Amino acid sequence: MEKIRASIIGGSGYTGGELIRLLLFHPNVELCEITSESLVGKYIYKAHPNLRKSTNLKFSSLSEIENCDVLFLCMPHGQSQKSIETYKQKAGKIIDLAADFRLKDLAEYEKWYGHSNSNPTALSEFVYGIPELHRDEMKSSDFVSSAGCNATVSILSMYPFYKEGLVDTERTVIEVKVGTSEGGNKYSASSHHPERSGSLRSYMPLQHRHSAEIVQELSFDEKISVNFSATSVDMVRGVLATIHLFTNEKLNDKDVWKLYRKYYYDEPFIRIVKEREGIYRYPEPKLLIGSNYCDVGFAVDDTSNRIVLIGAIDNLMKGAAGQAVQAFNIINGLEETTGLTFPGFHPI
Amino acid sequence: MEKIRASIIGGSGYTGGELIRLLLFHPNVELCEITSESLVGKYIYKAHPNLRKSTNLKFSSLSEIENCDVLFLCMPHGQSQKSIETYKQKAGKIIDLAADFRLKDLAEYEKWYGHSNSNPTALSEFVYGIPELHRDEMKSSDFVSSAGCNATVSILSMYPFYKEGLVDTERTVIEVKVGTSEGGNKYSASSHHPERSGSLRSYMPLQHRHSAEIVQELSFDEKISVNFSATSVDMVRGVLATIHLFTNEKLNDKDVWKLYRKYYYDEPFIRIVKEREGIYRYPEPKLLIGSNYCDVGFAVDDTSNRIVLIGAIDNLMKGAAGQAVQAFNIINGLEETTGLTFPGFHPI
Amino acid sequence: MEKIRASIIGGSGYTGGELIRLLLFHPNVELCEITSESLVGKYIYKAHPNLRKSTNLKFSSLSEIENCDVLFLCMPHGQSQKSIETYKQKAGKIIDLAADFRLKDLAEYEKWYGHSNSNPTALSEFVYGIPELHRDEMKSSDFVSSAGCNATVSILSMYPFYKEGLVDTERTVIEVKVGTSEGGNKYSASSHHPERSGSLRSYMPLQHRHSAEIVQELSFDEKISVNFSATSVDMVRGVLATIHLFTNEKLNDKDVWKLYRKYYYDEPFIRIVKEREGIYRYPEPKLLIGSNYCDVGFAVDDTSNRIVLIGAIDNLMKGAAGQAVQAFNIINGLEETTGLTFPGFHPI
Amino acid sequence: MEKIRASIIGGSGYTGGELIRLLLFHPNVELCEITSESLVGKYIYKAHPNLRKSTNLKFSSLSEIENCDVLFLCMPHGQSQKSIETYKQKAGKIIDLAADFRLKDLAEYEKWYGHSNSNPTALSEFVYGIPELHRDEMKSSDFVSSAGCNATVSILSMYPFYKEGLVDTERTVIEVKVGTSEGGNKYSASSHHPERSGSLRSYMPLQHRHSAEIVQELSFDEKISVNFSATSVDMVRGVLATIHLFTNEKLNDKDVWKLYRKYYYDEPFIRIVKEREGIYRYPEPKLLIGSNYCDVGFAVDDTSNRIVLIGAIDNLMKGAAGQAVQAFNIINGLEETTGLTFPGFHPI
Repeated sequence: MEKIRASIIGGSGYTGGELIRLLLFHPNVELCEITSESLVGKYIYKAHPNLRKSTNLKFSSLSEIENCDVLFLCMPHGQSQKSIETYKQKAGKIIDLAADFRLKDLAEYEKWYGHSNSNPTALSEFVYGIPELHRDEMKSSDFVSSAGCNATVSILSMYPFYKEGLVDTERTVIEVKVGTSEGGNKYSASSHHPERSGSLRSYMPLQHRHSAEIVQELSFDEKISVNFSATSVDMVRGVLATIHLFTNEKLNDKDVWKLYRKYYYDEPFIRIVKEREGIYRYPEPKLLIGSNYCDVGFAVDDTSNRIVLIGAIDNLMKGAAGQAVQAFNIINGLEETTGLTFPGFHPI
Repeated sequence: MEKIRASIIGGSGYTGGELIRLLLFHPNVELCEITSESLVGKYIYKAHPNLRKSTNLKFSSLSEIENCDVLFLCMPHGQSQKSIETYKQKAGKIIDLAADFRLKDLAEYEKWYGHSNSNPTALSEFVYGIPELHRDEMKSSDFVSSAGCNATVSILSMYPFYKEGLVDTERTVIEVKVGTSEGGNKYSASSHHPERSGSLRSYMPLQHRHSAEIVQELSFDEKISVNFSATSVDMVRGVLATIHLFTNEKLNDKDVWKLYRKYYYDEPFIRIVKEREGIYRYPEPKLLIGSNYCDVGFAVDDTSNRIVLIGAIDNLMKGAAGQAVQAFNIINGLEETTGLTFPGFHPI
Repeated sequence: MEKIRASIIGGSGYTGGELIRLLLFHPNVELCEITSESLVGKYIYKAHPNLRKSTNLKFSSLSEIENCDVLFLCMPHGQSQKSIETYKQKAGKIIDLAADFRLKDLAEYEKWYGHSNSNPTALSEFVYGIPELHRDEMKSSDFVSSAGCNATVSILSMYPFYKEGLVDTERTVIEVKVGTSEGGNKYSASSHHPERSGSLRSYMPLQHRHSAEIVQELSFDEKISVNFSATSVDMVRGVLATIHLFTNEKLNDKDVWKLYRKYYYDEPFIRIVKEREGIYRYPEPKLLIGSNYCDVGFAVDDTSNRIVLIGAIDNLMKGAAGQAVQAFNIINGLEETTGLTFPGFHPI
Repeated sequence: MEKIRASIIGGSGYTGGELIRLLLFHPNVELCEITSESLVGKYIYKAHPNLRKSTNLKFSSLSEIENCDVLFLCMPHGQSQKSIETYKQKAGKIIDLAADFRLKDLAEYEKWYGHSNSNPTALSEFVYGIPELHRDEMKSSDFVSSAGCNATVSILSMYPFYKEGLVDTERTVIEVKVGTSEGGNKYSASSHHPERSGSLRSYMPLQHRHSAEIVQELSFDEKISVNFSATSVDMVRGVLATIHLFTNEKLNDKDVWKLYRKYYYDEPFIRIVKEREGIYRYPEPKLLIGSNYCDVGFAVDDTSNRIVLIGAIDNLMKGAAGQAVQAFNIINGLEETTGLTFPGFHPI
């Protein structure tokens, strides 16, 4: 089979680096060009030191990029909507990893990103990038807007409950613990090691842009609301979502097992983790570093209608580059798990 | 002024060690004896290596302990209720750091600790050990039951709201992040460094013994309930409580400032932390290591009646030994802050 | 091509787990059996939680193991020498990951392991398992004794210098920093998270069993000696060796570059890391987690004959399971890098 | 006794913050002014969040500073030599925490700091700030130049050996492991949490400015040389020095105990740490956080003349602010340990 020619616009950041790593080792991909205006002409490993000896590619400039089959966009939010038409002329299929085409509600986009979406037409062409929810749409689409990391883990943990209409929709509390790679590679006083090491920091105590994605994807009969909060911990990769969900009727362990299995038994990248004993009884992000899995687990409160859902992902993988490659596989008719079977490490 | 003679029953654990450190440097205390059956005759620094050169005391046996003014009990839960009468003969004042005399409701005690309290009479003599709530009772008491760490930080964060009857009492969600010293010095597979390093572990997703203390202390007109969850992070000392509290009526920032100030302005060990800018805008446990402060902060959700409260303590200090010494100062008529003014480190 | 049937004796530990992971995803391997006497009948993922959903294999008992093509031995030191003849009847090729057949000098073995080697005959059949030094011998051998982790990184860093006779052989100081996975999965007071977190612990200030391997492999004309020291740091995986090597004659940067390139330019798993600028100017183990690379770097002291060599590996990969699979590939006539091309993560 | 009036020039950095903390709680000090040109008029706790509620002082400007008894200088290297005469008019006693007056050899200063010392006259008035070596000189001096952190721990570990002429002076190898607070509060790409977390980075493989201090203080009969190397680890505070020292004649454990005791038995801030069993057999920086102790330990190599010395300090305390206050106590005729008795924490 001929290889699919792929290029990356904006490949110097953390998500870009992870995407390069995945595509370099993807059996059906020829990675053609990776742009970075600030690093033009420099070896890829200057920005991504793990890739030393894995590739001799150098960063190229956006202005010189050639046509290819698939274009990945890894630019800061707000860029891709401006020049999407140009990119469409370069490649027939586009996967955007920024937030530009995630929110279908223009008012919501403006509220969270501080400016109106300049390209509502393109917006309608993009499929929201969680394959477990939108696999069929992806199969017949050429444009995918990759989902936010906190949104992905929250949505996948809760989806079966909301989809089945089981939730008391105003009470849900989502407590997300995130690592520092989520903030990208731009350094600041707050990311200075002596200040960030050992930190347990309420950086988004009330809300997060990603909560708009959660609301969009989990609103079925009515528009739901969620009580979100994000705390940064001393960890580089990974997100753990602890979700307090209140059901309309009392469910027990068996009910929840059945529900999760109904939705996720055949999913290649979702694992239900709930053990009676041992160390790893619930999902934990450290086991997922570099993996595309989303692990979900739960505990049912006997004294109320509360269920605590616990979801974990690697924010750079299932929360970004991995999920983008999963979508890439789907829109190109490849086996969905191609290049993504890495199971994580233990111990780590 | 003559020094107060104090001894410690069960001084080989983490709480015991912290208490020794505090009492060694307390200007009004003569630390007499510290018992440990397994370490009798060994230098204190063998168990608490930080205290090398600070004391030449050795561990003694419970059987040989002499009379003193104040006895601190640092034994595993369930021990002190059995032998409290013996201890009363040794000292006129007793501060128990275990859970034996915390819960006034015998049914609750049995539910959480798996056995009935064998000494309900003694129970009634003990004041629950959070000075900010029970200072006056302490002043006229000789017996204090020190509060649990997760309970302390949760109660102090929420107290003004519940006391004033502002809370929709069924909706509160308490998400506590704890360090590994909370589990004590007994090692296990789960505390093995390669398994625990980098962990973000839902070890108590639904409930915790300490939630019974929270219910006890915050139930005023009616018995409340709380939705508790505890996650262990890769940190040794410290607790961070992120609390989603829903008020009956909409409050704004000013209201909450006013409320906290009303209750805590004069409190020597509570700081309200809420900054508009900078790195440390909300409480963070790493700044509190070794300190007796409880830092509280908050964020008001504009879109609902939710207020997110953020509380932080050092579990071995304000959550255990420090708070015990604070109570010690009160029941002995000393300045409440004596020996407890350490403000924490930065950076750390 | 038919798959090579491989089994693992003793697969419940950290090295065993890593080996399982590698073999499960090795394109030319059929992983048949994995023994663990304490976990017989349990799923592999109970010991290696990262492998959930990657395999349905269960642990089997040593007594039931069937014949296969290659047997990997991952038992505690001292076991394989006793029963090697039995294993030879099970498989034609054997790779031992313990220390039993590493030291050719029986007196050295006895000195470091406290008992005499009970099988000197088998010893002579085993090739010492660093392919970069013994590739040709491996090609004509069926038995490989995998090298120690600290030995591997030290030997590979220094090999060109000793091989060329450039070293003042009594002066070399080797300072190795190791993570906690090196100690295996057996927990103890010393590995208890509150004690080990943040530690910087001189656990082997003077010597280590692995130094005997270094001496064996780097003694050419005369028996050398090394001044070894190992410090444990708060990290799970990885070894960093900082080596102070004194040359007989003054070398400069160019000389060392030339020397390293002569020996390692064609080596698939060795990277020379020495940058003039940027963050990662020298080898660093965090970039190597899960990778089979050994990164080597250097700095030449202008004021003396000292060269500081800096080597890094993942102790469970190039220091154990990865190097074993590398040897496996060689003795089976496969491409040496098969199943081992993972380049590590960034950031992590 | 009347309090000593002290002020700090340049108090916004990490060393300045630690000094403020110490002086605020020093029983004989009235902390008058703390300057910071960038933070004039702001509360101290804006830069040092641990000090919230400990002081109401605000940063003042250098231009407004009033006369006092003792002036602490915490400015970047190279500043104090320019304006020392001005400061002398402000205060009779000066303690400089920068490097300006540490190196007595002008050529050495120029070599390491890239410019000539502009004030050789003042240089001769300053005593090098390690009390254990220069206590008597300090007693009759008004000017102290506080020592570098890596220098302090290295010098104190080795001093008895060099002083007694026991060392083969060309062979010493000093391997220092440092935390990230040593680099100050200026953030950069290299200190960005995702890049620095988990790092084990050879940032100074060959030499360090502090090695010039080591040479100065340990050269008795002849000028010695040392083979230095510094590695940064994932830790905020603390330095661990692992020193390979070769003696002219073979020493045994007893000899070294005797030697250390001769020099350090009466030293209030030096502890000899060498245990046969237990977790903390050698010095470890995590036990010293916030403490002014320098812990020293050793291991004697039976097979050679090598002794491995292990020294640990908190770089901001015994390596900076703590040692400065120790000197302050001496030059003011106070008990040397005043305000410095904190023994560190366990666990931490």
